[in-house]
Amino acid sequence: MSELRYNLISGEWIIVATERAKRPKDFVKAKKEQVPLPEYKENCPFCPGNENQTPVETFRLGGSGAWKVRSVYNKFGAVSNEEKKERRINGLYNSMGGFGVHEVIIEHPRHNNCIALMSNEEVENILKVYRERYLAVSEIEGIESIVIFKNHGPAAGTSLEHPHSQLIATPVVPPQVRGRLEQAVSFFDLNGRCVFCTMLESELKEKARIVLETDNFVAFMPYASFTPFTIWIFPRRHSASFGGINDREISDLAENLKTILGKLYYGLDNPDFNYSIRSTPVGERGTSYFHWYLSIIPRLSQPAGFELGSGMFINTALPEQTAEFLRQVQLT
Amino acid sequence: MSELRYNLISGEWIIVATERAKRPKDFVKAKKEQVPLPEYKENCPFCPGNENQTPVETFRLGGSGAWKVRSVYNKFGAVSNEEKKERRINGLYNSMGGFGVHEVIIEHPRHNNCIALMSNEEVENILKVYRERYLAVSEIEGIESIVIFKNHGPAAGTSLEHPHSQLIATPVVPPQVRGRLEQAVSFFDLNGRCVFCTMLESELKEKARIVLETDNFVAFMPYASFTPFTIWIFPRRHSASFGGINDREISDLAENLKTILGKLYYGLDNPDFNYSIRSTPVGERGTSYFHWYLSIIPRLSQPAGFELGSGMFINTALPEQTAEFLRQVQLT
Repeated sequence: MSELRYNLISGEWIIVATERAKRPKDFVKAKKEQVPLPEYKENCPFCPGNENQTPVETFRLGGSGAWKVRSVYNKFGAVSNEEKKERRINGLYNSMGGFGVHEVIIEHPRHNNCIALMSNEEVENILKVYRERYLAVSEIEGIESIVIFKNHGPAAGTSLEHPHSQLIATPVVPPQVRGRLEQAVSFFDLNGRCVFCTMLESELKEKARIVLETDNFVAFMPYASFTPFTIWIFPRRHSASFGGINDREISDLAENLKTILGKLYYGLDNPDFNYSIRSTPVGERGTSYFHWYLSIIPRLSQPAGFELGSGMFINTALPEQTAEFLRQVQLT
Repeated sequence: MSELRYNLISGEWIIVATERAKRPKDFVKAKKEQVPLPEYKENCPFCPGNENQTPVETFRLGGSGAWKVRSVYNKFGAVSNEEKKERRINGLYNSMGGFGVHEVIIEHPRHNNCIALMSNEEVENILKVYRERYLAVSEIEGIESIVIFKNHGPAAGTSLEHPHSQLIATPVVPPQVRGRLEQAVSFFDLNGRCVFCTMLESELKEKARIVLETDNFVAFMPYASFTPFTIWIFPRRHSASFGGINDREISDLAENLKTILGKLYYGLDNPDFNYSIRSTPVGERGTSYFHWYLSIIPRLSQPAGFELGSGMFINTALPEQTAEFLRQVQLT
C-alpha cells in the first residue's frame, strides 16, 4: 500500500511508500565510534580567544569579555555586500554579481555544545541574535530575501564542529520562497484565509501529527512530508516575517526548539539535521498571505535519481507514526 | 568573487561561489578501500539463474535463455498499478491511492559491470529497453508522467550493486516536470522557439561548456549548473518525448552516454552519480515547447540548510572549468 499526498504549502504531490515503510526506530543510523569532542579546541576559529581569526564581527551578545553569541561574516561567503548587484546579459544568459550577505552565528563559546543540551536561556540568546541580524540585514538596500539555517553533522553539509548557524541574504527571491508565497496567495484568494493559520487549526483538531505544543508555537509533522521526521514549528500568531517575532515568542520558541531537538537527540541518537527559518521576502513583511515557520529536516534518507529528476519525493515513513514516536521520547 | 546565474530551463537563480571554488581534480572523493565486486553473486536477485526471485518480468531482451537486459516490477514499488487512483479529501488535505508503475531495468547479466565499461552495443540494449518500457507504460490509462533514472553508488541512493535503472510512472505531473514545461512555454511565447533548441545553438557557438559532440547528441555543462559536474545530454533533433527516440539516435546516445560516464569514471575515480531522462508529460509528446534530455548529476557535494530551506543552490565549481577538465579526460 502506498499513497500520494498533496502538500498544501508547497503545492506538490509526494509519495508515502508504506510498502517500504520502516518503523520509526529503524531510522537510527549506525554510527562510527565517535571520539567525544573537547570543550575547547586551540585551532578552532570559533572558540574563545581566537576572535581575531574570524572576519568582521557584525554583532556580539554578552559584552566585550565573555561573549555568549557572536555573528561574523563568513570567511568564504557565497555572496558578499562588496559585490555589485548589477545584472548582466551574456548572449542568451543572465547573470549578476554575487551581491548579498553571508554571516555565521557562533551559537555558544563551548566547542562541544549543541542546542539539544543547552539551557533555555542559551537557546533564547541564539534566537535573539537571529532576530537582530535578520532585522539589520533586511535594512540593506537590494536585499530581497533572508534565510537563516543550521547544518548539524556531516550528512547535513557542515564542515565545522563548533556549534554555529548561518544567514544568507540574496538580491533575488529563491525559488521555494517564491513558490510557497504563490501557493499561499492562491489559497488566500480562494478561501480568504492564511493557509498556515488554517493548517494549524486543522492539525490541532486532528492531533495525530502534533509533536509538541507550547504557549506560542506548535511543532508537528507535515501531512505530506517530503522526508522522514521532517518537523515544522509554526508560530500560533499570524506573522509573515520572522523579523516580527516578539520577546515572549522568542522565549517560548527557545523552549519548543530545544525540546524538539532534544527528542531527536535522544530518540534518534543525535542525527545529522538541517533547520531553516522560512520567512516572507523582506519587502512583504506585512502580508496576510504568508506565515513564517521553522522547518527541521533530519538527514535520514538520501534523495536519489527519481527525486533529482522530477522534484517529487518518496517518503518511507508515515508522519502519523513518527509524530507518535517523538511524542513518547523522554528527555533524560 | 561570486556570481549569480539564471538557469533558463528551470527559471531559477543559482550562486556560483568561486571564493570557495575547488579545482576540478579536488572533487575526487577519498574512498574506503573497496573490495572488487564478483562477476556473479549467488544471492543477488538480478544475477542469471535467480530470475524467479524477481517479481513479474515486463520485458526481456535476448530470448528466453541468456538474456541481455530484463525489466521487472520493483519488489518494493513506491507505486503500483494495482492501487486505485481515485482522489480523496480528508478535511483540509487531498490524497490518492499510490497508483502508478515502478519497474527495475536490469542492465546486464554480469554483477560487476557498469555502463562506463560496457560495449556500445550493450549500452544500446539498455536504451532500447528504456524506450520499450517508456512507450508501453505511456499507454496505461491514467499515467501522466514517466521518469527513467539510475542511482549509481551509495551516495546516489542505491542499495543494490548489480547494475540497474528504474522507471517510475505517476498519475500526477511531478513539480519539476511541470515547472520546466511552464518555463519552456513562457520562452516559446516570447521568442517563438524551443528554449532547448535555442540553448543548444548558443552552446555550440560558445563551445566553453561543451564536453562531447556526437552525430545526434551534445553533452555539455549547464551555464547555471545546480551542482558541480552536472552534465546535460541534449538530442540535436527537437523532440518533446523520450519515447520518440529513433534507432539511429539510440545508437548514437549509447556512444555519447558511455563516453561521458567513462570520462567521469576515469577522471573522477568512479564517482557516485544519478542520471534521469527528463521528458514531457506523456499527453504532450508532440509539443513544440519542450525537448527531452538526459541529466547526469555526480554526487560530489551535499546540499545543506540553505538549499533545503530556499531551493536555491550554491555551486562551488565553474562549469567552464569542469567542462574543460572532462574534455581532456582520456578513456583508457
